[in-house]
Amino acid sequence: MELDFTRLDRAFNPKCVVVVGDKQEGDFRWLRAQRAFKGKLYSVQVSPKSIEGIKKLGIENFTSLMDIPGDIDLVICAVPRTVSVQILEDCIRKKVGAAHFFTSGFSETGTAEGKKMEAVLREKSHQAGFPLIGPNCMGIFNPKIGIKQTVEQYTGTSGQIGFISQSGTHAIFFSLEAHLQGMDISKSVSFGNGIVLDSADYLEYLGHDPETKAIGMYLEGIKDGKRFLKVLREVSRRKPVVIWKGGRTEAGGRAIASHTGSLAVPQAVWDSAIRQCGAINVDDMDELIDTLKALIYLPPVKGARVAVAGGSGGQSVAIADDFGEAGLAIPLLTRQSYDELSTFFSLVGGSYRNPVDTGNPNSKEVKRIMEILARDANIDSLILMISTHFITMGFATDEDVNSQVSLMADIRDRFAKPVMAIVSYSTPRGMEQARSVTKKFQTKGIPAFPSTRRSAIALRKVLDYYRRRGGNA
Amino acid sequence: MELDFTRLDRAFNPKCVVVVGDKQEGDFRWLRAQRAFKGKLYSVQVSPKSIEGIKKLGIENFTSLMDIPGDIDLVICAVPRTVSVQILEDCIRKKVGAAHFFTSGFSETGTAEGKKMEAVLREKSHQAGFPLIGPNCMGIFNPKIGIKQTVEQYTGTSGQIGFISQSGTHAIFFSLEAHLQGMDISKSVSFGNGIVLDSADYLEYLGHDPETKAIGMYLEGIKDGKRFLKVLREVSRRKPVVIWKGGRTEAGGRAIASHTGSLAVPQAVWDSAIRQCGAINVDDMDELIDTLKALIYLPPVKGARVAVAGGSGGQSVAIADDFGEAGLAIPLLTRQSYDELSTFFSLVGGSYRNPVDTGNPNSKEVKRIMEILARDANIDSLILMISTHFITMGFATDEDVNSQVSLMADIRDRFAKPVMAIVSYSTPRGMEQARSVTKKFQTKGIPAFPSTRRSAIALRKVLDYYRRRGGNA
Repeated sequence: MELDFTRLDRAFNPKCVVVVGDKQEGDFRWLRAQRAFKGKLYSVQVSPKSIEGIKKLGIENFTSLMDIPGDIDLVICAVPRTVSVQILEDCIRKKVGAAHFFTSGFSETGTAEGKKMEAVLREKSHQAGFPLIGPNCMGIFNPKIGIKQTVEQYTGTSGQIGFISQSGTHAIFFSLEAHLQGMDISKSVSFGNGIVLDSADYLEYLGHDPETKAIGMYLEGIKDGKRFLKVLREVSRRKPVVIWKGGRTEAGGRAIASHTGSLAVPQAVWDSAIRQCGAINVDDMDELIDTLKALIYLPPVKGARVAVAGGSGGQSVAIADDFGEAGLAIPLLTRQSYDELSTFFSLVGGSYRNPVDTGNPNSKEVKRIMEILARDANIDSLILMISTHFITMGFATDEDVNSQVSLMADIRDRFAKPVMAIVSYSTPRGMEQARSVTKKFQTKGIPAFPSTRRSAIALRKVLDYYRRRGGNA
Repeated sequence: MELDFTRLDRAFNPKCVVVVGDKQEGDFRWLRAQRAFKGKLYSVQVSPKSIEGIKKLGIENFTSLMDIPGDIDLVICAVPRTVSVQILEDCIRKKVGAAHFFTSGFSETGTAEGKKMEAVLREKSHQAGFPLIGPNCMGIFNPKIGIKQTVEQYTGTSGQIGFISQSGTHAIFFSLEAHLQGMDISKSVSFGNGIVLDSADYLEYLGHDPETKAIGMYLEGIKDGKRFLKVLREVSRRKPVVIWKGGRTEAGGRAIASHTGSLAVPQAVWDSAIRQCGAINVDDMDELIDTLKALIYLPPVKGARVAVAGGSGGQSVAIADDFGEAGLAIPLLTRQSYDELSTFFSLVGGSYRNPVDTGNPNSKEVKRIMEILARDANIDSLILMISTHFITMGFATDEDVNSQVSLMADIRDRFAKPVMAIVSYSTPRGMEQARSVTKKFQTKGIPAFPSTRRSAIALRKVLDYYRRRGGNA
């Protein structure tokens, strides 16, 4: 089907939204999720019991989609599967922009009945050129205007990351987790079985979306491989695309078959095709978030040699191991750097190799140490490590953290080297502190990662990406 | 040096402890850390300013170790390195059980001066047969009697895990993190440069300690390889030993040289030697904690075939991938199981392959589903997955969680199969809830892990361990 961008754009930026079939038993999850939406919001429901609840929510209800006054940009359809064809027909007659079918029970069940009903939906949509999103999915999230996939998502703010997901759970968890780490969504879509609009369509759309600077995807399979790779190649020229592909193992492939019914692709074939298109492969949600974070915040990374400051003895070993295992280098500094460090560095209980131990009694010299590392010809990127444990223990105050954030921003501005932070935690309170410190760093444009290993993997991913792009980065 | 277990035992279970050189500037960290200790606690300090603060703490101070009345079982020495030899001489004359030297600035600095001072300490200890712990370390943690490495550690309770660490930071973080996950320490020691007592000595000691059921170690190197492997082989016959070896990479090896001055060992050589002794290798702190948890709580694991219940579509794929990549199987169930499931399982929106989707509307049938999985001939181990996200969202109550914990304990008791839980989180509040749910499971003897990947790696580690032990497990 030829993609009509105008209609998809209406669905992603609707002025009028109608929820069909939201019910009391489901606590009106779809209507409640759109409470922050400033445009027109209507309900279609025929059950008297549910209609009563909808009225209590202050939302106008109609018993048929056809009765809704004016143009409808987006329909969210939560009816039982047996009613889904009728609602689709109404959408088509009513010239709705696009419809998101939350309704499930189709090909993903593996039953003849489910497959047959899905075929009817597909056929009717294709005949009418109707952009159906789903079925068996969570639809659209546009935080800026308050269109949400679940009540828990945020609104009123907008970020730079577009997200396209074959799984509703991953779409929701990604949006929440990235938000807590200080990275917001521009537009996101969960498309489930993708029987009419598929991953390539959403990718093409977000590829042209000026609000989206980088795109993340969770995919289980692709239907039209040739078209997907063509679109991926085109979009990757303009903005980075990071793809988490589920079903890397045989068992994962089987789980996919009963989730969205996609066919398995051999992982090696997939990886190489994606790389050749200029996109980036990752293996899980953490890598997806971390890599997007590094892409959004770092300048092009060109070298594998990293200097890490912070962390005491045993931590330095773990840092060096984690970076080494990610294929990065923690090299010795130049003679000149060691000469400079030796004029003030307190050796007792600390190391000035690399990683550089900036704990007590060298903590007052972090600025001088960072400047030496930034000037060092053996070093491409700089990382400061902060353990929230030391904040919890009262060894570091909020003020200390703020001054370290400013210091790193200053180093980043004065030296042309990528600057990152690692903010580790091991308790719920530490996790809360880490998220707050992470946001402080990221507000200043410095990515902060929750562990050494995660920062090492993200840095390696973007290094490979910029190396493949060569001079075009 | 021939190890005198009686003296080491006095140090691990002291009746009288003396802290030498704790000072105002360090906020009396060592004296304050021992506040819960019920035995005799004295201080030795000569600085008038610090003596005043020690009196305020209500602790009796002497200006010389020789003046302390009665027998001393453990000395904690925090003097500057220049005074360390004198304190050691006093310890020897006073026939102290053993002394922990927090004092640093020796061979780990790489300086001639540091190496020379360390050699003097070593020689004097050897001549006198004196068990020196350290230097450059955090010493002993015995929570039951209130001997601690840092104020933040817990007391008044005792667990089954012994821990031996060449890094003080790792020793402390391990004790805190394991505790938050519901696993307590029996006895732990950080031994730093290990110039008199080395890892093998502590391993031999904890190997004979009846309170210690499993031993974790963080090592950077070993001095007497032959003896270490001999002791490791002996201890591993009696209880499981899990070893995290720092310095797996070249950069890690260099970080080690400036931390504890140990020499690097090629990783492959190390791994195979450890395995041949019947011990278990892990790569980081998380694996160390998770593997010990699986060893403590699970019966011998004999098969690689796992059934997972819980998690929705996209999560099922990630679960299958994570277990597949860890070398475990998520197989199809038997025909009989599918026949039974089909009598009640709601297919719409859920899968009954494996992983089995127990979300709405099948959540009321978890008991029946678990019984079917437990009886299935294709399945060796059972895992229930819980996302705290659903607790936070109000979809699951405390009561639901309690009943799932009871249900799993019941399944474990009725069927002879290992039973585990995964309790995932993505927010600080979720982390807090996850820790509480984890403890509930572990109180019933069911290990709970914070992510699919971590549970898969831990299960794989213990499976390999029990397979190597063959019939002896």
